[in-house]
Amino acid sequence: MRIGVELKEIPSKWFSVVPDLGFTVPPLMSQSGYPVSYHDLASLAPSSIIDQELDKVTREIPIPGEVSSAYADWRPTSLFRADRLEKTLDTPARIFFKYEGTDITGGHEMNTAVPQAYYAAKDKGVKCMVTATANGEWGISLAAACNRFGLECKVYMVRSNYEQKPQGRYVMELLGAEVIASPGNTTRTGKKILAENPSSPGTIAIALSEAFEYAQTKDDTKFAWGTVMNHVLLHQSIIGLESRQQLQKAGVRPDIIIGAVSGGSGFGGLILPFFREREQKPRVIAVETSVAPSLSKGRYAYDYGDAEGLFPMLKMYTLGHSFVPPGIIAGGMRYHGISPLISALYKEKQIEAKTYTQHQAFEAAVGFARSEGLIASPETAYAIKAVIDEALICRGKKERKNILFLFDANSNLDIVAFKEFVDGALQEQLTPDDDISLALSKLPQIPE
Amino acid sequence: MRIGVELKEIPSKWFSVVPDLGFTVPPLMSQSGYPVSYHDLASLAPSSIIDQELDKVTREIPIPGEVSSAYADWRPTSLFRADRLEKTLDTPARIFFKYEGTDITGGHEMNTAVPQAYYAAKDKGVKCMVTATANGEWGISLAAACNRFGLECKVYMVRSNYEQKPQGRYVMELLGAEVIASPGNTTRTGKKILAENPSSPGTIAIALSEAFEYAQTKDDTKFAWGTVMNHVLLHQSIIGLESRQQLQKAGVRPDIIIGAVSGGSGFGGLILPFFREREQKPRVIAVETSVAPSLSKGRYAYDYGDAEGLFPMLKMYTLGHSFVPPGIIAGGMRYHGISPLISALYKEKQIEAKTYTQHQAFEAAVGFARSEGLIASPETAYAIKAVIDEALICRGKKERKNILFLFDANSNLDIVAFKEFVDGALQEQLTPDDDISLALSKLPQIPE
Repeated sequence: MRIGVELKEIPSKWFSVVPDLGFTVPPLMSQSGYPVSYHDLASLAPSSIIDQELDKVTREIPIPGEVSSAYADWRPTSLFRADRLEKTLDTPARIFFKYEGTDITGGHEMNTAVPQAYYAAKDKGVKCMVTATANGEWGISLAAACNRFGLECKVYMVRSNYEQKPQGRYVMELLGAEVIASPGNTTRTGKKILAENPSSPGTIAIALSEAFEYAQTKDDTKFAWGTVMNHVLLHQSIIGLESRQQLQKAGVRPDIIIGAVSGGSGFGGLILPFFREREQKPRVIAVETSVAPSLSKGRYAYDYGDAEGLFPMLKMYTLGHSFVPPGIIAGGMRYHGISPLISALYKEKQIEAKTYTQHQAFEAAVGFARSEGLIASPETAYAIKAVIDEALICRGKKERKNILFLFDANSNLDIVAFKEFVDGALQEQLTPDDDISLALSKLPQIPE
Repeated sequence: MRIGVELKEIPSKWFSVVPDLGFTVPPLMSQSGYPVSYHDLASLAPSSIIDQELDKVTREIPIPGEVSSAYADWRPTSLFRADRLEKTLDTPARIFFKYEGTDITGGHEMNTAVPQAYYAAKDKGVKCMVTATANGEWGISLAAACNRFGLECKVYMVRSNYEQKPQGRYVMELLGAEVIASPGNTTRTGKKILAENPSSPGTIAIALSEAFEYAQTKDDTKFAWGTVMNHVLLHQSIIGLESRQQLQKAGVRPDIIIGAVSGGSGFGGLILPFFREREQKPRVIAVETSVAPSLSKGRYAYDYGDAEGLFPMLKMYTLGHSFVPPGIIAGGMRYHGISPLISALYKEKQIEAKTYTQHQAFEAAVGFARSEGLIASPETAYAIKAVIDEALICRGKKERKNILFLFDANSNLDIVAFKEFVDGALQEQLTPDDDISLALSKLPQIPE
């Protein structure tokens, strides 16, 4: 049941929680052990993006008119009440979800792709944006956003996805982007990896290194981050800002907020605007996949964001930048770290973390689809599992809690995986604790 | 650029153009040559659906509350202006499109699936709906609608699609529907076809016969039509009703309205509410595929809607119910006939028809995707080709016409076909005139 679609307007400002936190989020760190400055990022990112990334004092940042106009093509997105799921579960809890499946790419990534392309196009001499993607959702969004602002787009796509799940690639190419399998022979990083392992299937961390290296060598090209970074969470705050307004209009205060975390962009976008309020903070649950439990089993430490250590270091809950989890359908959730902002909130015990296996998540998503008629992305499947568990606790305790979760994307690229799950052909995956210990032993050594 | 999303409410009544036409649409005909009565359809369709099908006098039919609530999950849909396409084409024409790609199935079919399932669930003893589908878009919608109203759903899916393009099948199954490859051994029709040709790939007309036969033999099962019939166009009128309001709000009167026609449901839904006005009727163009040009090369005659002649006969532009066109990606457009209502409008010269080849359509859709960032369904691709041609005529004549077209669905199930087209691997298809002549020679003989 859709509620709260009737927002008169889209929020005019993004929201940054940083000034309100009451504690300091450790800064990005260069390899030489100094906090990263504007200068260190200047060759990589659009100037306004660097300003936003490093800004620690501004609570509200105006959304530029052209970005707002683009947002208006699909925003405000709808807030739904999962009333049929509530009935199926026979729970007194009320379940709400923010539905980010309506933009042209079917996911939430356009919220940050659009401003990144907009700011890049404003910078003098910039003609191209480059990024890394796994399944393709993020790459599709950047391709569409570049298209809108007259930029070329170049995407390094994890080779195993490029070859085995090419639908996302086809969409990017159709939108005019150049898609390159990673690792490949066009970068030093790619050549090095292929020399070690000619049949390397790639990881998102490797693809990030390749894209980052490419951006460093091209004056007319800027790198675009799809998640993790402060500016990405800033842009995604539009999700939570709208949700708050829509719930307020419906007279609802959320008791529990739930989202799946990959790098933390959709999750952060949903929850952070609820941290503005000093009182009655909701319980917040970050849901991880059991194969890559950065918050639950990782270490809070400085680590690289990419495989080769070309990125600045980030203080985050990490499994180690060399960590390679088994393949799961929710490819983005295999990333070794979590946004520094989300990591700091977890360190401060302001949010909780839960892990579920791939099978647990898919089973929940199938139940949801049969109740609500919507097939969730594999990432959202994890969130749904946590939602169902909380709703069942409410049933046991006869508590009428309000649960809000993020439906981050549709499953357009992943229907076959659902079929395999229903047929019993989708493998469960586990990560041995030793793999995590090994990767953690390879964390970069820097003064803390 | 999205405009007119801010409709306060969804129209509360469907619109039937029949009383306003000024001429009579020939009725459905039984095989014995008599107009079909309520009684003839009673075992097949929900009672309210039969009433709506046969009603020739009521101009406005209230939308039931539960259907309205379901519509509110995705309606009103957005009206967009294709301003970036206009710039690419350098045309003074203004191009608008009604975007039906936002419902949970990504297409317009839910507009009629929901009321059909609603009415079926209200009829005593009905537990199941059955239908036929090609790619699966219609079957997915019916599965989702049945799911919502607690009905089982059974879908006969054209075997070639079932086997070669199974994504639509997976979605239906995920939503809880039973999907059966057609032709198959569960019906007399299926057995007969397989006896003649054990490797028959099936057609939608065969699948319709099987579904129809199944419904006839089961007291607790009703058949659902996805297109062609009056009641389907009635339900789809919500598209045109919203479009009119949205354009009026924007101060725009459409000069040309364009839509692709398969059976005519989306097209009819868009255009018919504009026929209410006695003055300044817009030019209307129905776009057909050159492999199945029912309006352009068919005969206006009574013919069966299905392969085996189990349906009542319909007076329509038809290529003959035995007509089997070559395979094209826009599977629905291969159907041999066109809705009697649309056929009658064409006969009365109130609408025009145009045909394009598959390659022409895909080329137009790729250009559209690169301008507007939206990948259209293969059906909508045909409409876009006609839109571009009209916009270029406007450029030549320096005319600022307002063009409205129907974006009937997203291309979630057909990305691979676009990739093949871009790579030059998608075959162009042609229908020899002799094939049409042969099928037309097999039209049923009845007194006219």
